[in-house]
Amino acid sequence: MSEFRLDFTVRDYECDLQGIVNNATYLNYLEHTRHEFLKSAGIDFALMHQKGINLVVVRSEIDYKYSLTSGDKFYVTLKMELEGKIRFVFYQDIYRAADNKLVLKGKIIGTALSPSGRPFLPDELKALGK
Amino acid sequence: MSEFRLDFTVRDYECDLQGIVNNATYLNYLEHTRHEFLKSAGIDFALMHQKGINLVVVRSEIDYKYSLTSGDKFYVTLKMELEGKIRFVFYQDIYRAADNKLVLKGKIIGTALSPSGRPFLPDELKALGK
Amino acid sequence: MSEFRLDFTVRDYECDLQGIVNNATYLNYLEHTRHEFLKSAGIDFALMHQKGINLVVVRSEIDYKYSLTSGDKFYVTLKMELEGKIRFVFYQDIYRAADNKLVLKGKIIGTALSPSGRPFLPDELKALGK
Amino acid sequence: MSEFRLDFTVRDYECDLQGIVNNATYLNYLEHTRHEFLKSAGIDFALMHQKGINLVVVRSEIDYKYSLTSGDKFYVTLKMELEGKIRFVFYQDIYRAADNKLVLKGKIIGTALSPSGRPFLPDELKALGK
Repeated sequence: MSEFRLDFTVRDYECDLQGIVNNATYLNYLEHTRHEFLKSAGIDFALMHQKGINLVVVRSEIDYKYSLTSGDKFYVTLKMELEGKIRFVFYQDIYRAADNKLVLKGKIIGTALSPSGRPFLPDELKALGK
Repeated sequence: MSEFRLDFTVRDYECDLQGIVNNATYLNYLEHTRHEFLKSAGIDFALMHQKGINLVVVRSEIDYKYSLTSGDKFYVTLKMELEGKIRFVFYQDIYRAADNKLVLKGKIIGTALSPSGRPFLPDELKALGK
Repeated sequence: MSEFRLDFTVRDYECDLQGIVNNATYLNYLEHTRHEFLKSAGIDFALMHQKGINLVVVRSEIDYKYSLTSGDKFYVTLKMELEGKIRFVFYQDIYRAADNKLVLKGKIIGTALSPSGRPFLPDELKALGK
Repeated sequence: MSEFRLDFTVRDYECDLQGIVNNATYLNYLEHTRHEFLKSAGIDFALMHQKGINLVVVRSEIDYKYSLTSGDKFYVTLKMELEGKIRFVFYQDIYRAADNKLVLKGKIIGTALSPSGRPFLPDELKALGK
């Protein structure tokens, strides 16, 4: 199982009228972390799209435990596993940096779509999940 | 159980480099639908915040079934239920308008936080869940 | 000169921690209005991209006159002109619907990029600017 | 005149269906840089809002020179000046890190609104502009 971590700072425009990071924005953080993880393993999301292979999310489960707010520094952790023959799972948690407080627990299930739209598991991802 | 529906059109800036609506953006659609539903029942999200009561998401489960793309018209449905003493659940699905194709199934669990940060169920929401 | 108008409602996630629509979000509103205007004239932004022609913004000038906030209904107006041989200008204003109060005055200058990246004026747009 | 620089990496969700960073997203980059600059000078945007003082943009002029795309590293520069008695101007440029190519030239004019909504220049900002 691969492990990865990425550091972030909350940007004020990511906070909504409650003064906390909007619930959708955490999905952005998780996606950016996945793409940086894949890139670190030699898999470029944008290049795969240009080759006709689209990595897509098929299910997400998110537990919001605590809210991030203006100026907070935080990090996203990532572990990846294969699930069945064509799916990969990312376990992604978010922690506030100042005190390692758990902010969010996420499970993101993805697959790859071939140029014809058929779900499959590219060899590069197969290798990663081992 | 309350039912509600809201119509939308995909805006091009909501699509990412794959040419489809980004996975986080669907959370925006779901939130906007919840807030319009609450407003239709006399509950204003922004006014509640001003009174010190914050409605927050505590868990989301999303199944992405099909992708929306540039120009698609779609609608979001909503049913709300109470769950236990302090939680409310929104079942929210998204359908493409042209053919009623199911795009996404979502379950969003929320609670309200009192000015002191304690989870509770405001009376207005209690009434809604019946 | 072509005229166009599109109606909107502020979505709560578009407001930032000040409780007003974030300055960048108005650019989203203006873009969506331009694309709907172009579509009404038979020009599809996404289809042009697929044909290798990219419509891009080269300059924007925005005067922020008044802030939109949660729940506000508003509309965006649009007039288009050609400027020189390869540029088109969109004059776009935003008004709050309740009282027609001017919220924003914008001038957006765009061009089209050919598949080789050269700025040019597609015939469809030439026709529109007359 | 104060000078400041902040480093960024394009996140894939910031790219639109053309595969380049959306025109509105650059405003997010500029805002985040301004807020980090202010914070480095002891001025916290969110805390000022809590004290009833809102820093707002009154005008923006942006020249889009070149597009950022997936994976690009870039930096935003900032110089601040006072303009008249109640306005401050941020000159903000964006450069691609790999080759220092100019991506965008921006001029953002802001003011502060007192709790009663009157434009004024807080002392902290007056000191910064010198």
